[in-house]
Amino acid sequence: MAEVGLYEAMSTLRAVRRLRPDPIPRAVLHRVLEAATWAPTGGNTQPWRVVVVEESSTMAALGDLYRTAWYAYASHHKKLVAQAPEAVQRSTEKMLGAGNHLADHFDHTPALLIFCFNPNNMAITDRDQPRVSVVGGASIYTAVENTLLACRAEGLGCVLTTLLCQHETEVRSLLSIPEDWGTAAAVPIGYPLLGGHGPITRRPIEKLGFQDRWGEPIQFPNE
Amino acid sequence: MAEVGLYEAMSTLRAVRRLRPDPIPRAVLHRVLEAATWAPTGGNTQPWRVVVVEESSTMAALGDLYRTAWYAYASHHKKLVAQAPEAVQRSTEKMLGAGNHLADHFDHTPALLIFCFNPNNMAITDRDQPRVSVVGGASIYTAVENTLLACRAEGLGCVLTTLLCQHETEVRSLLSIPEDWGTAAAVPIGYPLLGGHGPITRRPIEKLGFQDRWGEPIQFPNE
Repeated sequence: MAEVGLYEAMSTLRAVRRLRPDPIPRAVLHRVLEAATWAPTGGNTQPWRVVVVEESSTMAALGDLYRTAWYAYASHHKKLVAQAPEAVQRSTEKMLGAGNHLADHFDHTPALLIFCFNPNNMAITDRDQPRVSVVGGASIYTAVENTLLACRAEGLGCVLTTLLCQHETEVRSLLSIPEDWGTAAAVPIGYPLLGGHGPITRRPIEKLGFQDRWGEPIQFPNE
Repeated sequence: MAEVGLYEAMSTLRAVRRLRPDPIPRAVLHRVLEAATWAPTGGNTQPWRVVVVEESSTMAALGDLYRTAWYAYASHHKKLVAQAPEAVQRSTEKMLGAGNHLADHFDHTPALLIFCFNPNNMAITDRDQPRVSVVGGASIYTAVENTLLACRAEGLGCVLTTLLCQHETEVRSLLSIPEDWGTAAAVPIGYPLLGGHGPITRRPIEKLGFQDRWGEPIQFPNE
């Protein structure tokens, strides 16, 4: 089988929140996790680790935490878009419906990837900025994105979630994560219940890019 | 031409710091930036922007800032590995040599991508944790990783740098970035002067992954 093309994988990677409980073959999981290791990290220190949760009792305990966090988020998010255009409300409803499904069926997720990181092994160059820091993420979410793309290539549904970070103390205790390691993402993976990956909706680069300075439109003449 | 395979791209994406000054065709740049837009972001809000710097006077000003930050980092880093095994010292020397080249030739970088983000458009779930926050990065570095992978596919050298974040005030002023936007990464891109992308050195997943809880080895029987 020819491997999936890079642009094809990136342009059809969806957040897939309805997963089947069927187990993931070990060889498939290996390829997905190996893709994570290939990611660039600052100074090639690879300051992340991943705990692959498959055990059902641990998944159930994490599911309890996730459900609490999800329904609080969903209720808040719904209020936020109450005055938004109808199209935004409709797409929000759809996302929330899928999110409810994930939360309600979390216990039956075949594998959950908990990405951890150690800030002591990172050069966090924006630590002194008068705004929230993000730079530690440059040595974690590159690996997470590789993981998601590999799931897409393998036909596995997946979604990048960060809600469990709100319950980091409990997650750390459940998974015996040492005190000096934080949690950055939880990625549930499994074969899709419905359509899985496919077309995505994104703003085009003309809305997100600028030429040489902020506000200057970026243009690509007909090619 | 068949597009590059996903796993092939990920497993041969190197930090390429020696770039030729040759301009990047507009169509190629367009494909690279479109790949960034495809990345997942929290709530699909796409809370990042990218300023594509090609103008030589702006590049020279950014180069002055980068050189200062780089040589401070390099001198510190060299001290850190002074007692490390010889193999580590050798690979550090090699990286620092390439980094010096980038810093010394920064003015002649054909394109520099400055990724910006707005924390007000993000749900930063680890904001209250008693450690540095990283979750904002989940809606930025997915796009940055897509960008790097697209560069790999297009034969463009690239490297994820974050040193300019130390000079965010000056960068913001040079590029007219509004006060409520931060900078997360600067990615110089250009055709490689030497070999460009190719084999990479990474720790295997058996060193970075755990099964069900921290410390429990993850195993993949012969497949």
